Amino acid sequence: MQTSKIHIQDEFWNRYSELVRSTVIPYQWEALNDRIADAEPSYAIRNFRIAAGLEEGEFGGWIFQDSDLYKWLEAVAYSLRRHPDPELEKVADEAIALIGQAQHDNGYLNTYFTIQEPGKQWTNLYEAHELYCAGHLIEAAVAYCEATGKRSLLDIACRFADLIERTFGTEAGQIRAYCGHQEIELALVKLHGVTGEERYLALSRYFIDERGSKPNYFIGEWERRGRTGIWSQGTPNLEVYQSHLPVREQSVAVGHSVRAVYMYTAMADLARLTGDDKLREACERLWANTTGKQMYITGGIGATHLGEAFTFDYDLPNDTVYAETCASIGLIFWARRMLRLEAKSEYADVMERALYNNVLGSMSTDGKHFFYVNPLEVWPDASIHNPDRRHVKPVRQKWFGCSCCPPNVARLLSSLNDYIYDVSDDGKTVYAHLYIGSEASFELACGTVALRQHSALPWDGRVEFTVSLPEAREGAAFELGLRIPAWFQDGRPVLNVNGEEREYRVEKGYAKAERRWADGDRVEWLLPMETKLVAAHPQIRADAGKAAIQRGPFVYCVEQADNGAPLASLSMAAEPNLRSYADADLLGGCVVVEGDARVADDTAWEDGLPYRPLDQEKKRAARFKAIPYYLWGNRAPGEMSVWMRL
Amino acid sequence: MQTSKIHIQDEFWNRYSELVRSTVIPYQWEALNDRIADAEPSYAIRNFRIAAGLEEGEFGGWIFQDSDLYKWLEAVAYSLRRHPDPELEKVADEAIALIGQAQHDNGYLNTYFTIQEPGKQWTNLYEAHELYCAGHLIEAAVAYCEATGKRSLLDIACRFADLIERTFGTEAGQIRAYCGHQEIELALVKLHGVTGEERYLALSRYFIDERGSKPNYFIGEWERRGRTGIWSQGTPNLEVYQSHLPVREQSVAVGHSVRAVYMYTAMADLARLTGDDKLREACERLWANTTGKQMYITGGIGATHLGEAFTFDYDLPNDTVYAETCASIGLIFWARRMLRLEAKSEYADVMERALYNNVLGSMSTDGKHFFYVNPLEVWPDASIHNPDRRHVKPVRQKWFGCSCCPPNVARLLSSLNDYIYDVSDDGKTVYAHLYIGSEASFELACGTVALRQHSALPWDGRVEFTVSLPEAREGAAFELGLRIPAWFQDGRPVLNVNGEEREYRVEKGYAKAERRWADGDRVEWLLPMETKLVAAHPQIRADAGKAAIQRGPFVYCVEQADNGAPLASLSMAAEPNLRSYADADLLGGCVVVEGDARVADDTAWEDGLPYRPLDQEKKRAARFKAIPYYLWGNRAPGEMSVWMRL
Repeated sequence: MQTSKIHIQDEFWNRYSELVRSTVIPYQWEALNDRIADAEPSYAIRNFRIAAGLEEGEFGGWIFQDSDLYKWLEAVAYSLRRHPDPELEKVADEAIALIGQAQHDNGYLNTYFTIQEPGKQWTNLYEAHELYCAGHLIEAAVAYCEATGKRSLLDIACRFADLIERTFGTEAGQIRAYCGHQEIELALVKLHGVTGEERYLALSRYFIDERGSKPNYFIGEWERRGRTGIWSQGTPNLEVYQSHLPVREQSVAVGHSVRAVYMYTAMADLARLTGDDKLREACERLWANTTGKQMYITGGIGATHLGEAFTFDYDLPNDTVYAETCASIGLIFWARRMLRLEAKSEYADVMERALYNNVLGSMSTDGKHFFYVNPLEVWPDASIHNPDRRHVKPVRQKWFGCSCCPPNVARLLSSLNDYIYDVSDDGKTVYAHLYIGSEASFELACGTVALRQHSALPWDGRVEFTVSLPEAREGAAFELGLRIPAWFQDGRPVLNVNGEEREYRVEKGYAKAERRWADGDRVEWLLPMETKLVAAHPQIRADAGKAAIQRGPFVYCVEQADNGAPLASLSMAAEPNLRSYADADLLGGCVVVEGDARVADDTAWEDGLPYRPLDQEKKRAARFKAIPYYLWGNRAPGEMSVWMRL
Repeated sequence: MQTSKIHIQDEFWNRYSELVRSTVIPYQWEALNDRIADAEPSYAIRNFRIAAGLEEGEFGGWIFQDSDLYKWLEAVAYSLRRHPDPELEKVADEAIALIGQAQHDNGYLNTYFTIQEPGKQWTNLYEAHELYCAGHLIEAAVAYCEATGKRSLLDIACRFADLIERTFGTEAGQIRAYCGHQEIELALVKLHGVTGEERYLALSRYFIDERGSKPNYFIGEWERRGRTGIWSQGTPNLEVYQSHLPVREQSVAVGHSVRAVYMYTAMADLARLTGDDKLREACERLWANTTGKQMYITGGIGATHLGEAFTFDYDLPNDTVYAETCASIGLIFWARRMLRLEAKSEYADVMERALYNNVLGSMSTDGKHFFYVNPLEVWPDASIHNPDRRHVKPVRQKWFGCSCCPPNVARLLSSLNDYIYDVSDDGKTVYAHLYIGSEASFELACGTVALRQHSALPWDGRVEFTVSLPEAREGAAFELGLRIPAWFQDGRPVLNVNGEEREYRVEKGYAKAERRWADGDRVEWLLPMETKLVAAHPQIRADAGKAAIQRGPFVYCVEQADNGAPLASLSMAAEPNLRSYADADLLGGCVVVEGDARVADDTAWEDGLPYRPLDQEKKRAARFKAIPYYLWGNRAPGEMSVWMRL
């Protein structure tokens, strides 16, 4: 765990942390209490009240409903860290007390099994998400303790973790198994971090090591349950649960994409903390496959809604896409851990891509509506009338019966300060991964160093750092590692120190500037933004003959609101004469991109004639207008497309 | 019913009727008897043996399995009409005897209910296909009687039809309902035709009139069954079964596409036979919608595999497509009936489009492998690894558990002689809808007229008719109506009579040549074929920026075998310099189309880099090679695409 303190102060991101604090967290609390009109009920609080014996009733919602409350508490913790708020803390403390009341004497805690299937604990690890929910409890407990210093939730979590440690393992009388939905593995690493207890790290490692061993636990469990399942039919599909192979033998991302990236996150943590090279190599192989061959340009992963899963290399359909919000969040978790393993800019590039596009786009500008699926192409009529596209919603929803995504967005956005910097193990280098305005303080080999970052991103590529040395007024020798973003492609960025351009070496995508820094030193890092057209790999058939627009970290899209419909009639001119300009009135303010296009003229078509000779086709010139992808779907429902025909 | 006699003698089609006779019919007989190694068993014959008390066992296969045997018998009947074959007739007679043994004393005949749910007859009209199977029994019986003069199967069918007539209707004690899968309606029209019994026509009309009336029968039936279903869950989706509205109020093709077109076929029959204008108008509206807004360029219909259904206007995805073989066959049935209602060339154009492309393509050149789904774009890896595309098979299958399509192809191809000509009601005009070499004889107002057609189609657009007048040696006055195909678009085709060009008037797409014809008159009808590029309506988003190739009745496609992969990397040059030539060695001989293309150069891509600046893109010139769509998938499995990027 890092001993850095980082506080975001940024024009772009302050709005989001404020939105999470003032809107998302209170709104989600209402949702957890089933008080949002016209939205699907959550049942989460009600389940805890029933399990605690305070209310009578049946369990409601999904079997993993508890995790929504835990994820909300985790977001609250991060928010309290930034904005102390005694009233919110009181609500959270009451929720924690309720959780405590629902815990069994032996430490067991899960409202579904307490209410609905007492005595059936640990009999359906394949589907029932008990360890998954425990993982989210642990993550919330760690965050809440770190934010408030209160141990109440941490004690609950440790009691449950201790029970789990006694229950699972290779000893006689223990269950030799692991969870159908990975999550506890990464949570136990955090619990190890905050408690210092090695056994939590060992338990995490046990779950990772055991996964995919033969004979497969899930198959045996399914047999014992009389070959029945809650959702799944037939023999368990082991790829869906990434238990088809021992994790160190896996090379290709398969199955449910959230499960996958949560697991890879824990694998990267364990590789770092235990120095496990085989695990690290597996992480690197899986990273290369996931981000090199199975990732949308928006940082979305998961190409099919059937199983919410990866499909295969280069299969990235834009219309039947899944690209679940939680999967991109998991990808960001994983990228963050890979950066800790090795400061290599491609990890931060992917983190930035997923954050500024897929994840940011999943929430409406009002903070109350969310996408679960983040498509790259939308035709609203098809979402209604074609069942293959019914999962693709053209407007963000208030709340979901399976509402894993909204609280996940809240916890990520409110902990974004943890994603900006790293300090190298030798304490000699400060790496800046993301350019987000902030006040930071690091304990380096040379002593305490504070960095104030001012960033004009995401709209402009000008970043400034000011060094403060509260202790060492005579100067401090350390290295600054500034990420050169993949989207900057015009030679080397200019680095000025106190107004003078400086040479630097580039290592793994970071500009390395080493010197004895003086208090008040000013670093300018210039990444002039240009609007770029991007092509996809020819193997990505869905994007053939098309281009996407990118400007800085933002991927752009065209919407019906600006360009009419059908959008498929629009094609970019060979020389599109792109122009970008800030529009302060559009969608809360953004930089718009315009360019020359040609539009098929369908006025000349006889109605009801589906096909005719090509030589009758007419086109007219037009200008297209594109907006950042993350702002799509905030106007009247209409068509949207990231990729434009050339 | 027509009194014309038409015998096909055609270089292209003889091969198919011979294939059906010598291969398809014997192969399917083996399949019906579960004697094909490595293919899914049919159980059809076994079910009849069990129902007849000759064998013990459980019912096997789908609930509508009986219909496979009936459709096979219908195909046999048509084949016997062309090629008398005592051995085959003996096999058929034995099958008919078996069917008779499985019939109940009261006329009831359905092996599923006899074996599996005795006493439950007529309790699940929504799903159980009893009347559907009865319909196929009737069609087979009519065909077999017409081909052989034998009444055995017709008697069985009439006994069952009589039971159905007593069982269903608006009288007290009758079930006021209709079948979940339309088919009996069109069959009863045929039974009326061969028996002359008005009550069969009335029963057909009753089923059509009753459909969609309120309160909906299927909803009530589902309630009575305790809200359970065989396949479907939840309240019956009435659109799937086209019972959401009375048929005369329907304007848009919805739901299961085979059900829809079978129903429209019966509606067109009834509109003609009963002079029902409202029914005719509904047919015309539904035709305009189906063929104008929901039909693939191959004549395929049904855009989604979920419910094997229509989706909505202009939604014609090429990759997740359904385009079931049976649906195109049903479209041909319907087009045939629309032509009888009104000789309008667009009906024959659609008939030709579906026949030469979707239907012909569904069968392999060896007659033993079939497509159920007929895609316009195939990526074999996606069919394996992306569950949204698993229904799209890159190679034809030996037999299907639900094997409605193969026997449907057999009965269509072996009765193709019924699709070539019509005689107007006044007996004064002979219409030629399809250009298929044949010997025909018509009873016209002027007496018996024989026409020998010689056709160079589908490869060349030269057709010749020779008039024979066996009775009236002094000449006979009648009109010849020659369809001007939609694919002929270079002015007016030339019509020569005895070597001299003749003027003609055009009526509803038919060239009308009226005169007193003499014995031996020769008509030349010249439709020079050009290779055309075709565009889709701009609302068809899936085809935007693309072109298809058509030459005569054939739609073309590119295959990996000729063009490499990924096919998406291939785009047609602005001036493609198309060249077509006959290749006698390719796939049994066909006309190939070549043109200039550009291919994305993926050798310059770094492996694992999914996106990069567009300005790095390189293309190289190439020639593409396209083959007729109906021949795709007869080589090593690979990519295929009908639409090519421009």
